Amino acid sequence: MAEDRQVEVAKGVFFSAWTYNGTVPGPVIRATEDDLLRVTFANAGSHPHTIHFHGIHPSNMDGVFETVEPGASYTYEFPARPYGMQLYHCHSTPLKKHIAKGLYGAFIIDPPKLRKPAQELVMVLTGFDTDGDGENNFYGVNGPAFYFAKYPIRVRRSQTVRIYLANLTEFDPINSFHLHGDFFRYYPTGSSDYFEYTDTVMLCQGQRGIIEIDFANTGRFMFHAHQSEFTELGWMGFFEVID
Amino acid sequence: MAEDRQVEVAKGVFFSAWTYNGTVPGPVIRATEDDLLRVTFANAGSHPHTIHFHGIHPSNMDGVFETVEPGASYTYEFPARPYGMQLYHCHSTPLKKHIAKGLYGAFIIDPPKLRKPAQELVMVLTGFDTDGDGENNFYGVNGPAFYFAKYPIRVRRSQTVRIYLANLTEFDPINSFHLHGDFFRYYPTGSSDYFEYTDTVMLCQGQRGIIEIDFANTGRFMFHAHQSEFTELGWMGFFEVID
Amino acid sequence: MAEDRQVEVAKGVFFSAWTYNGTVPGPVIRATEDDLLRVTFANAGSHPHTIHFHGIHPSNMDGVFETVEPGASYTYEFPARPYGMQLYHCHSTPLKKHIAKGLYGAFIIDPPKLRKPAQELVMVLTGFDTDGDGENNFYGVNGPAFYFAKYPIRVRRSQTVRIYLANLTEFDPINSFHLHGDFFRYYPTGSSDYFEYTDTVMLCQGQRGIIEIDFANTGRFMFHAHQSEFTELGWMGFFEVID
Repeated sequence: MAEDRQVEVAKGVFFSAWTYNGTVPGPVIRATEDDLLRVTFANAGSHPHTIHFHGIHPSNMDGVFETVEPGASYTYEFPARPYGMQLYHCHSTPLKKHIAKGLYGAFIIDPPKLRKPAQELVMVLTGFDTDGDGENNFYGVNGPAFYFAKYPIRVRRSQTVRIYLANLTEFDPINSFHLHGDFFRYYPTGSSDYFEYTDTVMLCQGQRGIIEIDFANTGRFMFHAHQSEFTELGWMGFFEVID
Repeated sequence: MAEDRQVEVAKGVFFSAWTYNGTVPGPVIRATEDDLLRVTFANAGSHPHTIHFHGIHPSNMDGVFETVEPGASYTYEFPARPYGMQLYHCHSTPLKKHIAKGLYGAFIIDPPKLRKPAQELVMVLTGFDTDGDGENNFYGVNGPAFYFAKYPIRVRRSQTVRIYLANLTEFDPINSFHLHGDFFRYYPTGSSDYFEYTDTVMLCQGQRGIIEIDFANTGRFMFHAHQSEFTELGWMGFFEVID
Repeated sequence: MAEDRQVEVAKGVFFSAWTYNGTVPGPVIRATEDDLLRVTFANAGSHPHTIHFHGIHPSNMDGVFETVEPGASYTYEFPARPYGMQLYHCHSTPLKKHIAKGLYGAFIIDPPKLRKPAQELVMVLTGFDTDGDGENNFYGVNGPAFYFAKYPIRVRRSQTVRIYLANLTEFDPINSFHLHGDFFRYYPTGSSDYFEYTDTVMLCQGQRGIIEIDFANTGRFMFHAHQSEFTELGWMGFFEVID
């Protein structure tokens, strides 16, 4: 459901967002490949919206041609394909505004043969232009600036950490993910077996992938954008790795 | 042949371009690997120009040291290598201006063992700074803004669609290609067998690659940059997929 | 050792840098995988600094939590892992300033089974904001603008040229490396066997990789960013390939 909503994007700073189900990003949608996905979308917001899914689906399920007016609803229904880290966002025009306002979220499609068990996380990279000047004033992961700096993510060294990562930041040409003190396997888009072994990946808007970390050490490790400005405006956090 | 030319970059908007053979981008040059390529370049424009090819060739065929004055000509001759999606552009200084003015084009080198038959397209990503303020006012594929939105590209579902993609946009750090409703194989540079399976790729200026799409569905599917601003200023189009 | 130092960033232009050992970039640190690395860092500068290494190491060796005050020192000690092209930089806040001021360098970890012999080079991509307006006025490789244009790098055609490449440019979202007249193998991060065969690669800050060139021809070949502005402000040079 789309609804207009004030969301807290930094301590004490509220943003007049357009949301799916009241949060930015919206809810995680997850399916196994070839599952029939059915999403009923009710627009309770003040503007026409849609849901545009990345992935394979018929043209009339694409969230471009069938705009959903305020008060109306639409049901998206198609087999979830292909496996990987997909995403969804509003595709109403002006596109820039509908994304910047917060209408996006993660869409995970698991492969038929499930990935090995892991400590799983979703990280959607966000930016918030709170003063409407066409530049982001705050950056975050899954929402508010510095959230995971204040509340570090506790993970175990003994099991792989798997992150479903997507960049939905508007205005900036790229965003990135950098891990401190360790390396990870990065599967771009997550739809094939190829991975890069690194500690820094770059994504433009709409790009996404799957990160797998096997921590070598316990302790506190930072993760953040390797764009200093984004880091200083909120896109940073900590892993607390325990035995 | 280089010539100064007014080109239409959006409906009713003309741009004082510097062109190869009268168009922006210039003509597609295509050869098979190891073919002897011979290009005679006559400069009928008002400024010194060159042709700088991406690929392997001798230093004096590089279009850097041998500037071709207005009224002069030069013959570039070398074996076409390596196979892949290459490109060419003017390398006179100031480099920024000679590229922004439109002096670039696609250069395809086919592998000795030809790729499998496909519906082939070339897409050169362009930007036009019509008011000379150092920012692009219009974006397009192979030229005018919104061209393939007005004239969708008709393709058949039964055969692979192969796109030779290159980014020659000036001023912006990156550009990208996003396909709606389906996935593609992306061969960066097109000079090896590696591909990524995705629906969104990012390119800086000078980067290029080969896209192969096997459409699962018929219907109308959008393609565009995943930078909202570029999309809204003209870099978007449609595939019309028929059986 | 960190020290404040005037460094020449273009002919006759000096920049008030913060340096490791007096130069920007700092010294190359090189080890073989699993070697015990021990770096004693004395802060003789006027601000608190650290050394943050990319790679695998304990949390207290990460250069984030243990700030080294002016006059103090700290010893970083950990096994060098994983093999590849790593890098180091100061992680004091404001991060943007400590990187822009010049506190970074290359950190090469060789694999246990050494790479095949080659003509080896390190290239750290730099930018200098000499007027403090938050934009770079000069760009370079390993330091001053146009250095390798004035002093071309002489290499032999008969042996592979291997470049350890890293981007530490602040302010700009991306930087890139483009080679004229030939192709290279690019190993992103240099920590696995995967490579791309191309002539243009793009890196955000903190990204790095290993380039291997087998020149086909002798002669003079340019290399530079494929962002025209960076090229024109100093990020370009020449290889002089001899037999």
